[in-house]
Amino acid sequence: MNPAVFSEALLNQLQNTQYGDQPAELYDPIRYIMNLGGKRLRPLMTLLGAYLFTDDWQKAVKPALAVEVFHNFTLMHDDIMDQAPLRRGQPTVHEKWNNNIAILSGDVMLVNAYELLLDVETPILKRVMSRFNRTAAEVCEGQQLDMNFETRTDVTEAEYIEMIKLKTSVLLGFALELGGLIARADDASVEHLREGGINIGIGFQLKDDLLDVYGDPAKFGKQVGGDIIANKKTFMLIEALEKAEGALKTELHSWLNRTQFDKAEKVKAVTEIYDQLGIRQIAEARISSYFAQGFANFEQVSAEPARKELLLQFAHQLVERES
Amino acid sequence: MNPAVFSEALLNQLQNTQYGDQPAELYDPIRYIMNLGGKRLRPLMTLLGAYLFTDDWQKAVKPALAVEVFHNFTLMHDDIMDQAPLRRGQPTVHEKWNNNIAILSGDVMLVNAYELLLDVETPILKRVMSRFNRTAAEVCEGQQLDMNFETRTDVTEAEYIEMIKLKTSVLLGFALELGGLIARADDASVEHLREGGINIGIGFQLKDDLLDVYGDPAKFGKQVGGDIIANKKTFMLIEALEKAEGALKTELHSWLNRTQFDKAEKVKAVTEIYDQLGIRQIAEARISSYFAQGFANFEQVSAEPARKELLLQFAHQLVERES
Repeated sequence: MNPAVFSEALLNQLQNTQYGDQPAELYDPIRYIMNLGGKRLRPLMTLLGAYLFTDDWQKAVKPALAVEVFHNFTLMHDDIMDQAPLRRGQPTVHEKWNNNIAILSGDVMLVNAYELLLDVETPILKRVMSRFNRTAAEVCEGQQLDMNFETRTDVTEAEYIEMIKLKTSVLLGFALELGGLIARADDASVEHLREGGINIGIGFQLKDDLLDVYGDPAKFGKQVGGDIIANKKTFMLIEALEKAEGALKTELHSWLNRTQFDKAEKVKAVTEIYDQLGIRQIAEARISSYFAQGFANFEQVSAEPARKELLLQFAHQLVERES
Repeated sequence: MNPAVFSEALLNQLQNTQYGDQPAELYDPIRYIMNLGGKRLRPLMTLLGAYLFTDDWQKAVKPALAVEVFHNFTLMHDDIMDQAPLRRGQPTVHEKWNNNIAILSGDVMLVNAYELLLDVETPILKRVMSRFNRTAAEVCEGQQLDMNFETRTDVTEAEYIEMIKLKTSVLLGFALELGGLIARADDASVEHLREGGINIGIGFQLKDDLLDVYGDPAKFGKQVGGDIIANKKTFMLIEALEKAEGALKTELHSWLNRTQFDKAEKVKAVTEIYDQLGIRQIAEARISSYFAQGFANFEQVSAEPARKELLLQFAHQLVERES
């Protein structure tokens, strides 16, 4: 099986899904954000999860898209809350239209996600819906924690990991779990898929934090140092704030408190503080640990090795990402 | 059967429903808005709809609350969009907390509504969810149309009726339909309930527009003339804009265009224009017509007359409302 087959099936479903028609102000933003692209990791995970246990993975395509629509709904609403001007290099919905339209289009996107998710067989419908509801609530909890952290200076590493787990990873876990549920996998395998997805997801997000500081500018899609410039509370900064003492602590706080600064100078200075504190090594060790745990979870899944290989290859791509 | 039994069951369910716990900023606003009160018309309609066909109406209580939670989710988000400072005499969620919290709490409320709705029997789950999805999308469409109408001066009566049907009435129709579905009523009766709910709902909303102008200040909960002061595009104003000619037309537009005015004077003047155009009679005839159509729909429902009497009494209260 060539994994490109999954991507083609998803692309086809994306192009053929009707989100609604009138009023145009309500539905145009949905088509707009769904067409901005992205890696489509989540729906791909659902198809990979289903393929582990069945040749009839096509029946997972519409529910897989539900996960992608839900993900984009959270982006549309998060962008309002974060007052973000750009998403994937294009104007965000609230910038291109306005806040009210972004609120209401997002609401109807969430409804659309539920409608796509209805396309599972009746015996598993209640379980799928119940798990999706729990996941969706957790994603909202993660976003609220993220906003709460903005005004706090005492966020611990454990709190940060819990936040990214809720905001990002549980949906990756659900995407895999959903594939397993649709393919009627055994309960233990479904749970291993979910946990593996969560662990890989945490590693994935921590790698994002690492690449912001130590990524190769030629490969990293975003500006290297963007998080440092914005004082964003990433794993790197939280770890540095916990570890720094004496002069280094004073210097780090001084950079965090400056309102006027040369961006390149700040990135260089804060990166040097990270270097002295060994934050890169701490982060790399944590990332490796979460990825290893995720692979151990996948190891426990009862499926044909050849099929599992596709999932493992996919996970390896996430591990080795440079952008 | 004393209808107070239904209200007690709902109140009990309201008090025992857990919406979530942490972070508090996410879940406190849900408890806040759900405790602001209100007539609880929608969940009551679900229970009345179920009781038509079964003694086991208690199994409709949790799904009934789903409709009330969904309704309050729409209020929370609409209040942001309308920048409304008060809801039922208390600060709105975005005023008491902030816009971001109102967006995100609303999102998780919608998820909560879906979770409560899951409490129906498996054979009807897909149908219930599918109908709820359609209704929820229509409510969003209605809100978008309402916002679009604010900046238009050529809204027709037909467009206005369609807007209030979507924004308000389809949810009343769904509330009754849901009761019928849960009680496993025949398809024809379920459809008559839905259509009856929609027609009564349109009459109910038009009566709201009428009472704003011709209500008894001693009985009407809100300020009489509030819609006139705000130039709100109600049935009354749309009808007057369609009917007015010559000097009356000039005078009406003059009042609509003034930014400085004495409120009582404007209410008196516009009401006199409505009087001269016979808008009250036109509105009363339309309201009667929708209510009559609703009662004709209910007539067609196949249920014991004694049970149907409870629904008819409830609908009569809506017809005869003075507040």
